Amino acid sequence: MSYSHEVEVFVRLCETDALGHVNNTSHFRYFEEARGKFFKIIYPDRSSSFNFIIASIKCDYIHQAFAGEILIVNTNINRIGDKSFTITQILKNKETGITIAMGELVLVCYDNVKGISIPIPEPLKENLEMQLSYH
Amino acid sequence: MSYSHEVEVFVRLCETDALGHVNNTSHFRYFEEARGKFFKIIYPDRSSSFNFIIASIKCDYIHQAFAGEILIVNTNINRIGDKSFTITQILKNKETGITIAMGELVLVCYDNVKGISIPIPEPLKENLEMQLSYH
Amino acid sequence: MSYSHEVEVFVRLCETDALGHVNNTSHFRYFEEARGKFFKIIYPDRSSSFNFIIASIKCDYIHQAFAGEILIVNTNINRIGDKSFTITQILKNKETGITIAMGELVLVCYDNVKGISIPIPEPLKENLEMQLSYH
Amino acid sequence: MSYSHEVEVFVRLCETDALGHVNNTSHFRYFEEARGKFFKIIYPDRSSSFNFIIASIKCDYIHQAFAGEILIVNTNINRIGDKSFTITQILKNKETGITIAMGELVLVCYDNVKGISIPIPEPLKENLEMQLSYH
Repeated sequence: MSYSHEVEVFVRLCETDALGHVNNTSHFRYFEEARGKFFKIIYPDRSSSFNFIIASIKCDYIHQAFAGEILIVNTNINRIGDKSFTITQILKNKETGITIAMGELVLVCYDNVKGISIPIPEPLKENLEMQLSYH
Repeated sequence: MSYSHEVEVFVRLCETDALGHVNNTSHFRYFEEARGKFFKIIYPDRSSSFNFIIASIKCDYIHQAFAGEILIVNTNINRIGDKSFTITQILKNKETGITIAMGELVLVCYDNVKGISIPIPEPLKENLEMQLSYH
Repeated sequence: MSYSHEVEVFVRLCETDALGHVNNTSHFRYFEEARGKFFKIIYPDRSSSFNFIIASIKCDYIHQAFAGEILIVNTNINRIGDKSFTITQILKNKETGITIAMGELVLVCYDNVKGISIPIPEPLKENLEMQLSYH
Repeated sequence: MSYSHEVEVFVRLCETDALGHVNNTSHFRYFEEARGKFFKIIYPDRSSSFNFIIASIKCDYIHQAFAGEILIVNTNINRIGDKSFTITQILKNKETGITIAMGELVLVCYDNVKGISIPIPEPLKENLEMQLSYH
C-alpha cells in the first residue's frame, strides 16, 4: 500500500490525561490528521464547495498509549456506497506494533453551497475503488 | 431524572474548526465533561485505585453545532453487565432542542493497582440500576 | 463588577495531562470561553465582518489545577488604545480562591472583508471604557 | 543547529477554528510537541521525579496558519538561570518561511517527590549551555 495510507504521529503531553495515558478524545485527533493527509492524495483536486461530512465514528480502544510515543495511523477504505463510504483507521505503536485503537468512520460527500449530500464525485470514486482493491 | 444527568456546555471557538462548525473531536470532550459530573454523583466514594476504562465509543453526528451556542448533554445508563456497562450520551442544542449527536460508550471497571478489569463495585451497581429504572 | 465578567468552568479530564494537572494549553481554552461570553455582553451587535484578532498572549502559571475542579475566570479591561486594547484574565479555583494563572492579551479590531486592522468601533469603545472605570 | 531543534507539524482541522485559521490555543500544542522532542535529546536520562514546570508563556501571533499546512517549530535556549531557563520557540510556515508565531517560555526544574523547585541538574545545564553557544 502507498505511503499516503500510513501516517506517523507523536503523542504530545497535552493529548494525555491525568490517568497517565492518551485521553480518549485524542485518538480522533490522530485519525483526523491521517484523513487530512489521505484525502490530499486520494482527492487532490476537490472544489472548495466540496466537503466530507462525518456521519458516524466508532472507536474500539485496545491498548493504552503514552506521551512521547510514536504512533502509526493506517487508513483504509472498506465500503463504497452512493453518497457515502466507510473507512477504517487503525492506530498502532510504531515501536512495538501493538494496536492502540481501531476506528470506523462513515463519511458523506457534501456540497457546502447547496447544503445537501451529493453522490461521490467520479474521480474520487475511482481512487477509492483503487484503494479498496489493495486489500 | 435528576439534575446530575443533564449538563450544560458552552461551545468554545477552539472547539470549532475551519468548516465553521463544532469539530468532530469536540463532541467527545462534551461527553467527557458530562461523565465526569455524572460519576461524581453516581459513584462519589470511589477509591483512588478505581477507574472507568472506555472500551468503545460510537457517535452519530446528526446536526451541526456552532461557536457560542449552549448545548445540553444527557447521560443515561442503558445496559449493566458484570464488569462493564453501557451509557448513552445525547448532545442537544439548548435553545432549539435539536439533537446534535448521539453517543454510546462501553465502560469497564478497572483496578489501577492490580492492572485488571474488575466486577462493577456493589454501591456503583446499585446506583446504576437505580438510574436504569428511571427510563 | 457585573456577572458577565465572571465565568465558571469545569476542568475536564481531557484538559489535564499525564503530569496529573491541567495542561498548560488548557488555560487558554478557559480564557477563550470567558472572552466569548464577555464579548457577547460587551459588544453584542457586532457585524459579521468584525473580529478580534489576538496580537499576543502572556500567561503566568501560579498554581496547579486538577480534573473535576470548578474554576473561575475573571476578565477585565486594562488598556484601551486606538485599534487595540488589552485585557487581563485571571483563573482561580472556585472553592479555595487560589489563583491558578494570570493572562494578559492584546486584542486588535479587524475587518475580515477588507483584511485590515481597524479603529475600535465606537459602541465597543464606550463599553470597554465603562468596564475600565469599574476598577 | 542540530535536527533536534527543528520539528515539523501538520496542521489538523481540529486545530483550526470557525474563523478559518489555526486557533490561538493550538500554537501552544505545537510548541509542546517541539519541547517534548527537544528535551528527549537535550536531557534523555532524566529521573522520573524530575519535571519541567512552565512558569510563564508569552506568544506573539504574527501571521495566520491554515489546515493542511506544514509548519516548522524551532526551539532555542536564550537564558540559563539557577533553577530556571528561558527558551524561544518560533513557528514558521515550511513552504513560505513566513513566521506564524514567536513564543517565549520560562521553565523551572522541579522535583515531583519533594514538591519543590530545584537547581538545573548539571548534565542538563551542560547541554543547555552547549545549545546556547550555537547562536
